Amino acid sequence: MVRLLWIDPVDPAALGDVMECLREASGGDTHIEVVSLPGAPHHLEFWAYEALVVPEILRTVRTAAERGFEAAIIGCFYDPGLYAAREVCGDMVVVGPCEASCLLACALGHKFGIVVGRDKWVAHVEDNVVRYGLASRTVGCASAGMGVLDFGKDRAAAFRRLKDAALTLVRRGAETVILGCTAEASYGRELQEELGVPVIDPVVAAVRFARVLADLRRLRKWGHSRVGAFEAPPAGELDGWGVDAKYRL
Amino acid sequence: MVRLLWIDPVDPAALGDVMECLREASGGDTHIEVVSLPGAPHHLEFWAYEALVVPEILRTVRTAAERGFEAAIIGCFYDPGLYAAREVCGDMVVVGPCEASCLLACALGHKFGIVVGRDKWVAHVEDNVVRYGLASRTVGCASAGMGVLDFGKDRAAAFRRLKDAALTLVRRGAETVILGCTAEASYGRELQEELGVPVIDPVVAAVRFARVLADLRRLRKWGHSRVGAFEAPPAGELDGWGVDAKYRL
Amino acid sequence: MVRLLWIDPVDPAALGDVMECLREASGGDTHIEVVSLPGAPHHLEFWAYEALVVPEILRTVRTAAERGFEAAIIGCFYDPGLYAAREVCGDMVVVGPCEASCLLACALGHKFGIVVGRDKWVAHVEDNVVRYGLASRTVGCASAGMGVLDFGKDRAAAFRRLKDAALTLVRRGAETVILGCTAEASYGRELQEELGVPVIDPVVAAVRFARVLADLRRLRKWGHSRVGAFEAPPAGELDGWGVDAKYRL
Amino acid sequence: MVRLLWIDPVDPAALGDVMECLREASGGDTHIEVVSLPGAPHHLEFWAYEALVVPEILRTVRTAAERGFEAAIIGCFYDPGLYAAREVCGDMVVVGPCEASCLLACALGHKFGIVVGRDKWVAHVEDNVVRYGLASRTVGCASAGMGVLDFGKDRAAAFRRLKDAALTLVRRGAETVILGCTAEASYGRELQEELGVPVIDPVVAAVRFARVLADLRRLRKWGHSRVGAFEAPPAGELDGWGVDAKYRL
Amino acid sequence: MVRLLWIDPVDPAALGDVMECLREASGGDTHIEVVSLPGAPHHLEFWAYEALVVPEILRTVRTAAERGFEAAIIGCFYDPGLYAAREVCGDMVVVGPCEASCLLACALGHKFGIVVGRDKWVAHVEDNVVRYGLASRTVGCASAGMGVLDFGKDRAAAFRRLKDAALTLVRRGAETVILGCTAEASYGRELQEELGVPVIDPVVAAVRFARVLADLRRLRKWGHSRVGAFEAPPAGELDGWGVDAKYRL
Amino acid sequence: MVRLLWIDPVDPAALGDVMECLREASGGDTHIEVVSLPGAPHHLEFWAYEALVVPEILRTVRTAAERGFEAAIIGCFYDPGLYAAREVCGDMVVVGPCEASCLLACALGHKFGIVVGRDKWVAHVEDNVVRYGLASRTVGCASAGMGVLDFGKDRAAAFRRLKDAALTLVRRGAETVILGCTAEASYGRELQEELGVPVIDPVVAAVRFARVLADLRRLRKWGHSRVGAFEAPPAGELDGWGVDAKYRL
Repeated sequence: MVRLLWIDPVDPAALGDVMECLREASGGDTHIEVVSLPGAPHHLEFWAYEALVVPEILRTVRTAAERGFEAAIIGCFYDPGLYAAREVCGDMVVVGPCEASCLLACALGHKFGIVVGRDKWVAHVEDNVVRYGLASRTVGCASAGMGVLDFGKDRAAAFRRLKDAALTLVRRGAETVILGCTAEASYGRELQEELGVPVIDPVVAAVRFARVLADLRRLRKWGHSRVGAFEAPPAGELDGWGVDAKYRL
Repeated sequence: MVRLLWIDPVDPAALGDVMECLREASGGDTHIEVVSLPGAPHHLEFWAYEALVVPEILRTVRTAAERGFEAAIIGCFYDPGLYAAREVCGDMVVVGPCEASCLLACALGHKFGIVVGRDKWVAHVEDNVVRYGLASRTVGCASAGMGVLDFGKDRAAAFRRLKDAALTLVRRGAETVILGCTAEASYGRELQEELGVPVIDPVVAAVRFARVLADLRRLRKWGHSRVGAFEAPPAGELDGWGVDAKYRL
Repeated sequence: MVRLLWIDPVDPAALGDVMECLREASGGDTHIEVVSLPGAPHHLEFWAYEALVVPEILRTVRTAAERGFEAAIIGCFYDPGLYAAREVCGDMVVVGPCEASCLLACALGHKFGIVVGRDKWVAHVEDNVVRYGLASRTVGCASAGMGVLDFGKDRAAAFRRLKDAALTLVRRGAETVILGCTAEASYGRELQEELGVPVIDPVVAAVRFARVLADLRRLRKWGHSRVGAFEAPPAGELDGWGVDAKYRL
Repeated sequence: MVRLLWIDPVDPAALGDVMECLREASGGDTHIEVVSLPGAPHHLEFWAYEALVVPEILRTVRTAAERGFEAAIIGCFYDPGLYAAREVCGDMVVVGPCEASCLLACALGHKFGIVVGRDKWVAHVEDNVVRYGLASRTVGCASAGMGVLDFGKDRAAAFRRLKDAALTLVRRGAETVILGCTAEASYGRELQEELGVPVIDPVVAAVRFARVLADLRRLRKWGHSRVGAFEAPPAGELDGWGVDAKYRL
Repeated sequence: MVRLLWIDPVDPAALGDVMECLREASGGDTHIEVVSLPGAPHHLEFWAYEALVVPEILRTVRTAAERGFEAAIIGCFYDPGLYAAREVCGDMVVVGPCEASCLLACALGHKFGIVVGRDKWVAHVEDNVVRYGLASRTVGCASAGMGVLDFGKDRAAAFRRLKDAALTLVRRGAETVILGCTAEASYGRELQEELGVPVIDPVVAAVRFARVLADLRRLRKWGHSRVGAFEAPPAGELDGWGVDAKYRL
Repeated sequence: MVRLLWIDPVDPAALGDVMECLREASGGDTHIEVVSLPGAPHHLEFWAYEALVVPEILRTVRTAAERGFEAAIIGCFYDPGLYAAREVCGDMVVVGPCEASCLLACALGHKFGIVVGRDKWVAHVEDNVVRYGLASRTVGCASAGMGVLDFGKDRAAAFRRLKDAALTLVRRGAETVILGCTAEASYGRELQEELGVPVIDPVVAAVRFARVLADLRRLRKWGHSRVGAFEAPPAGELDGWGVDAKYRL
């Protein structure tokens, strides 16, 4: 049994259809626990909103490590706080849906495209792709013209817009299509049938990628390197300074 | 008179020599006010520490905009929360020392190098440089092997190590050297004299870059574009959701 | 039970220690079958040798698909014929150790380095890394100065040279080290202990990456996209032309 | 008082509306003197025309340094002779409108676009952007289909065409728009109002960027590095060779 | 007299109009001999088909070197086996039409575009262009929507489609157009007349490029470097292993 | 008979050993005429010196086109005025030694290195390589620590320094070495013998590359594209403006 924690970094009221995808992604000896952030924003479309929830994500990651989880997944396609979380995750691995989806897509086709909700997201998602070094593997983003919270409203309209955006990407040369928001995930199966190319649901991608990393950690102790980017802060340093509660991990 | 706010995103106990550089950078009709974050960590060497202070940075930026400042500078070379701050800065401009130093260095030589404190910082600083699109303009980073708080201790030793790191960069082809931490800034003049190439002190660079942006904002309303990356969140959205205090701006 | 085929594209006489790593990588409900190419070269250090075995690799992949395997792994770090194999693999997935190792390493550190055997390999391995779009994630290759067949001779000497090369990479900023040859795989555990960074054994990496892709194929039919790079040749086209036996799949 | 020299590298008959933008950009204690090149071509759309005027630009820069100017601006968006001028500018700084506009735009949005006059200019402007290392920050150029001298003719038509080109850039993801010719500068205010994104007028951008560099030179002696790209020729070398008048500086 | 070998890596039945272009490209003291591969596939549109013929290409190259040819050209725009062939070509030079066309195009315009037959080819051709380091010099590929064997059928229709694809490239900024298949070569002259930009026929480009390399080899012994990528396999190594006939060179 | 013009853009007193290399590069039906610029600087190590001679280079190119030359070569490794010259060369082709050497080197090895004279040249040569799109094909430059005029003095010392720099490049992975100055050309043969890798003499490379372009121009009218970068200025435009003599072509 491998225990994963899915951290939905928004208020529980905004969880949406993620549970269904998670149920599908778990199974066998993978057990997934879900936590969300009561009182948090309902979506993270802005860099500012994202920044507001990262401290709580980090605390959740830390606690998860202490509780014996083997992997944590930060359940938003912006991968908020991913690198920070890897510093403080102890023996766990931490996964983000964007990174996981892109890395898996790399093995399924030579170029991938990403369907985002609104044009505003493009800079953030491309920023991630550049950071992950994968700019040359993508045909870029196409926007469905919908906010995160719109995906749960009129499903027929959402499907139509997602499909249009996905087709734009395919015409640009995308061989696989990544759904660029966990709120889009539940449209994955149907879109794949219509489009005839793999449509990567970031929820399933992230869970399975977390699972394989957790397995490799068990098997070979391949965790996040403690040299360089993911060096961990010295234990107790923050406490030693007597930082305020809001600055604690 | 142009009023700038320098936000030192650490506890006041760790302010160091920044004040001296700031005094020098202001003058004329530039007025700089300094704020730090009581109870915050004493340095931000880790992505996690950085993430912990960004919410408070954003709140400070917002308040500054309401108080009529024309520019805010986030006083850490990691440029923590820079893009998020630009979403919520209203009519102000927001500047980060890393971005400002790199952009100015681009006009002074064809290649710049950055002296960081510890190897750990390299990934973060290079991440910034890649995001700013300037990877081809840099010869990379060299490390002095010192943490942020070490720079205020033995000045002679610090100078020696900074100089060694800077010389490594010059040998690699750096035509200008950027000091990659506000805590290194006070060594700038002396290093420049020894090295014979411009040594960019990120405090002075950031203040003056903020000043020119503020001027251009006055003159021509060239602020951060509200289309794309720096689109502002809808006014009152967070309040409408009734988010917890810790998730407020 | 998931059945994977490990194709060792060299003569069985040159199989080396791969079996041991494979045993470790399988387990649970993963069953691995191994096939090698009797009469084939004993290593593939040259592009020419590699080219000579690819037709037989492709035939093996095709047969494996017909025999109901869910994944095939081409057991050489050059990933010989990977893209060709993906065209003709039907419902299977096909994985190469280089691609799998690099993609997994991307999640474990910000920069990886690759220990190759001889300088000659560098161009080929870098060619792969560039094709996979990951040039910005690597600090490059370091050579142990040993051919493929040398790794099975004097283990103490091989270990020493591999360690030296790995340390070179760490000094250049590598946060994880990838062993750039399946013949180096058996040194992985010991090297990791000495180096203190994750040392990716390409055999284990490839098997586990194949496993997760096979799982996702079952779960969601995410196979290699049939649009673009991995479009499959029309069934029977070669036969229709009456090509010679040596040109058949 | 800081004295800047604006070098308009064309015949005075072709000066156009630049004076108006210059008046606006100066003010306070910035004094701008303008010089143009009597008998020179009326525009520099071709690499060849540009090359013809560079020697005279260099002589003008040299003289300006001797006359005590603190900055010279080469008033053409191709930045003709910028790197050469930096070698011979002594204690002055030298600025080009393209470089200045691009560097400032980097702080105002994540992606900028450039409105050029004719398709012919694209290669030259992109060449500049690549040299400045900013290829990843731009969505490229869009052409208004007008030559330099056309911008002073039918202002209504010019405005329409500039706006169309700018909108093309915004649709491609530009968050700021740079006017890619000093002859386009006088349309900046009006275009910005219509487009709702910052429209960078290269005249104002260059003057203010020159001003901040000049200030930093005064404050900290940060001039163009004399190591590497901008190393100055040995004093008197040309004279020592007895070169012809046309080869003198 | 310089003797070149044109290797048409398909069955003679599929040779098409190449002979005519070859006749034109030879002349003077260049003598071209043509060899094709009886029983081979009729086209190489797929990576798999390409892989099947590479061993025979390599054998042909080796024999050619022994027979005293000075250059061999692998007559397919995928440049199949180019790097492998350079390892085993002894004192000959080996040229591929894609590489030769791209390198020559670089001197004729700042950006080139490539007309491919089907969308499927794009990944392969772009892969070549990336390997050759020329990604920044191309505006990419446009597809005529025709397979290799279609180009010999309805010439009027083929011309129309090639022209449409070429115009797409010119609108994207291509200053020269490369015909991305030897089967397209015979349309080159006519297309060039219609388009008004150089249209590179890959047959002529490859022959002439091979000629200049052969000349330089004679004059200065500039052949493929035997250090690094094109290091030759040790003489007799394969024979020493007693590899099967199908694995011999 | 093909007539080429070699333009040595320096004073005849500084011609050096170029004639010998030219003699070798011509022969057969290639006739080379040499012209230098009396009264010009003795070397072009600085951007400024280069700029001073470009107008005269352009006039020489124009006249050469009128006199029926089929190709002109700008005999300096900085390729001074190459793009400008291509605008005004009429039916000729124009070649630069740097571009020609790099393009030919691309076919001889996967990575090339360039031996420059002084560190100062690195920025200029790398600027060329970046403009030519070949940054990923080079291991960079190494400096011999000698100015242009030093190469004709102590040949033994020069050889030693060139060899040291070349070895540095080989150790960095260079498979071919390009001599980065026409004044280094006469050391090519001897260096190649010592190094065991192709050593590209830029004089021979440029002449032969010019020859193949001239041939292709004759055969197929493949000249510099008149669309985009190398669009020619309208005939008589400069004259129509009545520009001064120094601004004429």
